[in-house]
Amino acid sequence: MIDSLQNERIKAARKLRQKKHRQAEGRMLLEGENLVAAAKEKDLLAEVFVIAEKDTALKEATPVSERVMKSLTELPSPPGVLGIARYPCFRPPGERVLFLEHIQDPGNVGTLLRSALAFGFHSIVSDRSADFFSPKVLRATQGAIFDLNLAEMSLADFCESHPGHKVVAASSDEDSASVDHPRPPFVLVLGNEGGGLSQTALAAADIKAHIPTETVESLNVAVAGSILMHRFHGFDKGPFRE
Amino acid sequence: MIDSLQNERIKAARKLRQKKHRQAEGRMLLEGENLVAAAKEKDLLAEVFVIAEKDTALKEATPVSERVMKSLTELPSPPGVLGIARYPCFRPPGERVLFLEHIQDPGNVGTLLRSALAFGFHSIVSDRSADFFSPKVLRATQGAIFDLNLAEMSLADFCESHPGHKVVAASSDEDSASVDHPRPPFVLVLGNEGGGLSQTALAAADIKAHIPTETVESLNVAVAGSILMHRFHGFDKGPFRE
Repeated sequence: MIDSLQNERIKAARKLRQKKHRQAEGRMLLEGENLVAAAKEKDLLAEVFVIAEKDTALKEATPVSERVMKSLTELPSPPGVLGIARYPCFRPPGERVLFLEHIQDPGNVGTLLRSALAFGFHSIVSDRSADFFSPKVLRATQGAIFDLNLAEMSLADFCESHPGHKVVAASSDEDSASVDHPRPPFVLVLGNEGGGLSQTALAAADIKAHIPTETVESLNVAVAGSILMHRFHGFDKGPFRE
Repeated sequence: MIDSLQNERIKAARKLRQKKHRQAEGRMLLEGENLVAAAKEKDLLAEVFVIAEKDTALKEATPVSERVMKSLTELPSPPGVLGIARYPCFRPPGERVLFLEHIQDPGNVGTLLRSALAFGFHSIVSDRSADFFSPKVLRATQGAIFDLNLAEMSLADFCESHPGHKVVAASSDEDSASVDHPRPPFVLVLGNEGGGLSQTALAAADIKAHIPTETVESLNVAVAGSILMHRFHGFDKGPFRE
């Protein structure tokens, strides 16, 4: 059983709390049995630590003391199981892509990933949003992360490498068109919580999708994005279904 | 300027961080200028405190020291302005009511209140959910709170006193009917994040509303509730508009 906070494997795991180390190594930290099981199913699990007293079905798990487990997490009560997984590879995106432009709140990013999976947006690209592989986003996705195709790049780079994808910008501007039903392939762009879409996104937009509401107050970005994905998904039950 | 943490007015304000004191007094604490301004507009503002150095348009504000302000909030950086407002009165609910059954996350409750206002659900009733008037929910609503009609009661009590309202239960059960478009008056019931709807709600349901998805994973409750309110609202643009 590992009880030393200075153990090399524990130190290496703890580093993965920081984005720069995650990116350099292409590995993430998974808190809790559900996330660990989801990674294992996709053959992405590299290591597992378990609190010594805990029963687990994971034979490869290394027992650690509770204080070691506590040193690896920010959760008030440490998980019984904690894993390290490799980043999944980015595959070519499908016909329906969700683009997150500077979405800062990890809860919003996690909620959007869950909705994306539910409504058939399997590829998600981020520019300066909360890191997909941060512990907070991973918790909020509840395992959906391993069924998604994730990348980080700018909208300009995405558009350059995918010229066939129409740009659909989610706009809170009442003057913009109401929701349109875009024919795939397209990329749905959501903007920052406070500042909205960038000038780049507004200029690149082929369609501006607006959700009519009774008030001038905007919707939460995870709600707005989910409503649009739901609408575009429902539409596909009709003539444009892939 | 008040600099004593033991000042009677400050002690009274600090008590409002706890639900039991808020309920006993029918008053809430507002962090930040936007919430204070929204309460003032509705004539619900009882008191305002402002950090001594800060400029404010609120002439009635009492200057306090930064450490006093810090003692009144859990925010890492204390707001420049903090107010106390009276609870709004509950009016008879309209034709479209949102019912929150044990929704525990303050962020989810706040997001749902924003969406409710946007989609014309002006009356919201809660049973054992995160307190509408807690600082976290108030922050998440971004001022929408003062345009809504809020109450706490059980679903059984609501149904008894509003026998004309159909019960529409949001269900993640794939076997339940797909989304129906209920004719007002109705109450849309959302269940707990982990546990879903209570047996009481399921038994009382006239209609079960299900959102079809591609996966078995459920949607975030604030997303699911917002999608249903959006659909029911959109429908009202048609024959059943109030």
